[in-house]
Amino acid sequence: MLRALELAATPGVPLGPNPRVGCVLLDADGQEVAEGFHRGAGAPHAEVVALAEAGDRARGTTAVVTLEPCNHTGRTGPCAQALVDAGVRRVVFAQPDTNPVAEGGGAALAAAGVEVEHGLRETEARAVNRVWTFAVDHGRPFVTWKFATTLDGRSAAADGTSRWVSSPEARRDTHRLRALADTMLVGTNTIDVDDPELTVRDELDQPVPQQPLRAVMGLRDLPATKRVFNDRAPSLHLRTRDPHEALAALYRQDRQHVFLEGGPTLAAAFLEAGLVDEVVAYVAPMLLGAGRNAVADLGIHTMADARQLEVTDVTVLPGTDTAHHTNVRITMRPSPAVEEEA
Amino acid sequence: MLRALELAATPGVPLGPNPRVGCVLLDADGQEVAEGFHRGAGAPHAEVVALAEAGDRARGTTAVVTLEPCNHTGRTGPCAQALVDAGVRRVVFAQPDTNPVAEGGGAALAAAGVEVEHGLRETEARAVNRVWTFAVDHGRPFVTWKFATTLDGRSAAADGTSRWVSSPEARRDTHRLRALADTMLVGTNTIDVDDPELTVRDELDQPVPQQPLRAVMGLRDLPATKRVFNDRAPSLHLRTRDPHEALAALYRQDRQHVFLEGGPTLAAAFLEAGLVDEVVAYVAPMLLGAGRNAVADLGIHTMADARQLEVTDVTVLPGTDTAHHTNVRITMRPSPAVEEEA
Ligand SMILES: NC(=O)c1ccc[n+]([C@@H]2O[C@H](COP(=O)([O-])OP(=O)(O)OC[C@H]3O[C@@H](n4cnc5c(N)ncnc54)[C@H](OP(=O)(O)O)[C@@H]3O)[C@@H](O)[C@H]2O)c1
Ligand SMILES: NC(=O)c1ccc[n+]([C@@H]2O[C@H](COP(=O)([O-])OP(=O)(O)OC[C@H]3O[C@@H](n4cnc5c(N)ncnc54)[C@H](OP(=O)(O)O)[C@@H]3O)[C@@H](O)[C@H]2O)c1
Repeated sequence: MLRALELAATPGVPLGPNPRVGCVLLDADGQEVAEGFHRGAGAPHAEVVALAEAGDRARGTTAVVTLEPCNHTGRTGPCAQALVDAGVRRVVFAQPDTNPVAEGGGAALAAAGVEVEHGLRETEARAVNRVWTFAVDHGRPFVTWKFATTLDGRSAAADGTSRWVSSPEARRDTHRLRALADTMLVGTNTIDVDDPELTVRDELDQPVPQQPLRAVMGLRDLPATKRVFNDRAPSLHLRTRDPHEALAALYRQDRQHVFLEGGPTLAAAFLEAGLVDEVVAYVAPMLLGAGRNAVADLGIHTMADARQLEVTDVTVLPGTDTAHHTNVRITMRPSPAVEEEA
Repeated sequence: MLRALELAATPGVPLGPNPRVGCVLLDADGQEVAEGFHRGAGAPHAEVVALAEAGDRARGTTAVVTLEPCNHTGRTGPCAQALVDAGVRRVVFAQPDTNPVAEGGGAALAAAGVEVEHGLRETEARAVNRVWTFAVDHGRPFVTWKFATTLDGRSAAADGTSRWVSSPEARRDTHRLRALADTMLVGTNTIDVDDPELTVRDELDQPVPQQPLRAVMGLRDLPATKRVFNDRAPSLHLRTRDPHEALAALYRQDRQHVFLEGGPTLAAAFLEAGLVDEVVAYVAPMLLGAGRNAVADLGIHTMADARQLEVTDVTVLPGTDTAHHTNVRITMRPSPAVEEEA
């Protein structure tokens, strides 16, 4: 199973909407016969790759898989059937597949007389597909909310100027995180006011080959000339103000990871709805003493109702010269108390 | 000189208002004859300790000292004279003593026919007495301003509640930092409103034996019944609103390190006067969206005037359980551009 997990986590595999899966076929003596991993949407599943490599030697083997073999015919046939057809004797999988369209592979295998076992290293397997697992478990995309702030909680000065609260290193780091999501989300007013393109650029400021979907949320009409609607990446106007509805629409389009970049109104709406699963704050070591608040009113009046977060990571992003200051990235998740409320 | 620096930095030496100094006496072959370090105000200077240990063997040696030997009769006699009297042939010191009452030791030695050299490892020697060196160079105490803030720059909720923005670990850490300073400073209004005792407590919440001076700044009269005036530690009411004047008064009392804890009005006055030399921010991972600002208005209207700081340290203070969240301590100094303005 450890080897299967390693295969699943093969770096550089384009994820698309599919989970990362690894599979190893073992003979009766526990020796490896073949292995495979899934390269992303459209490519054959890990089990199919391993079976193809094994050929006739698949008969009588034990298949060790990180995720329950699927039971549906998507872009590839059901893996459960392929394992049965190849004469695999026993299947051991880590994480059950609760995705409604794919689930039931274990039962189908058992019904066909294959010995089935599961749960081995399930925690590690879930971690390999953290976001996919979250989305399948909750029936909606995982939401990362990113904001940049001065040390005293400002996103712009009193006169509205905001270039640059965050350092070039923090902005590059943001692009790296954007690239890990499949969807960017902003409110209509940010488009109206700033007209951002919302594409993801690499270290050399070039657009990355796989661009996330650019989603804009809000009721007003937006001119088609806005840069977010150009042909550099797909875009989508979600004509709603309901965060639940917006996430449901994105999930129907196989979106699993939303990177919410504001503005403050939209971010507050997601926070109040309990629909922020991860907070990434870039703290810039500067003081303004006045100006626009980085976080909008959340309807909180007393300390007991403060939105508590748990720090999962603190990373120092050193500046390259004295004019470009070190920023601090603090990553958090809602603390358990808050999750219980949600 | 490395050994002399080690001696100077002997841990646990009570500092009082005096610099930490180390001294090594070497014979003609470079072999150590004796060594000494200064244990703090009232105790003999490092040179005197080393000379006493050496006795007659001091004649003809080279004295390696981290700080220029003093030239004044304070609680102990001038070290320059003591070195001459003991027949020391050559003196090598790292950092010149620019303290007006003590300076001139090098010249006095040279005039008495002793060979004098200086500047060796001066940077390291200055670092050993970072705060003392700053105070002597600037003729005023070094000022550390500490504040606690939520991630969105609030020090209290809309209804004024503020227990607890910072975690127990952050509060303990604050007491540790207070103990490194010789003076605590707050505004009269903090005394009026909160009536804090302003003593320093240890890990077990017991008062530490050496308490900093508790200074309160502002024009109004304060009742003698306020806890800050109790007999647990010395206190002082500075009847001024001028930060320069307050620091000058403290410096005249041999104070070298002020730990400024607020409130926001007083902190803003020091920031605007360019009299904050170090900023320590405790960032709590919580959001309020509204409430009292952690940093008061600084008269800044546009980003170009933002007060830029340079991060010198980021320390994660883990909470002990889920109810006590991890806090992040960010230590900063004014960035060079700001210093030039001052
Ligand atoms: N510092 C940063 O990281 C950052 C990031 C992004 C933007 N900004 C700044 O933020 C400013 C824009 O802020 P903003 O808050 O006005 O813009 P916003 O949050 O992008 O957009 C607000 C608009 O979104 C729509 N909307 C969608 N769902 C909503 C809901 N549940 N509740 C309320 N409105 C909803 C509404 O427009 P409809 O009438 O169309 O429904 C609303 O007016 C810009 O100046 C931009 O520069 C800063
Ligand atoms: N979060 C924290 O870390 C923290 C720390 C401390 C206090 N606080 C909170 O802050 C609140 C008090 O804040 P505050 O800002 O009113 O109190 P403050 O800064 O402690 O005191 C302000 C007073 O100091 C005097 N003062 C001295 N020098 C001054 C100058 N240069 N400019 C203006 N005034 C000067 C003035 O009183 P005179 O009329 O007497 O001259 C002024 O009213 C309290 O509620 C307390 O809980 C929070």
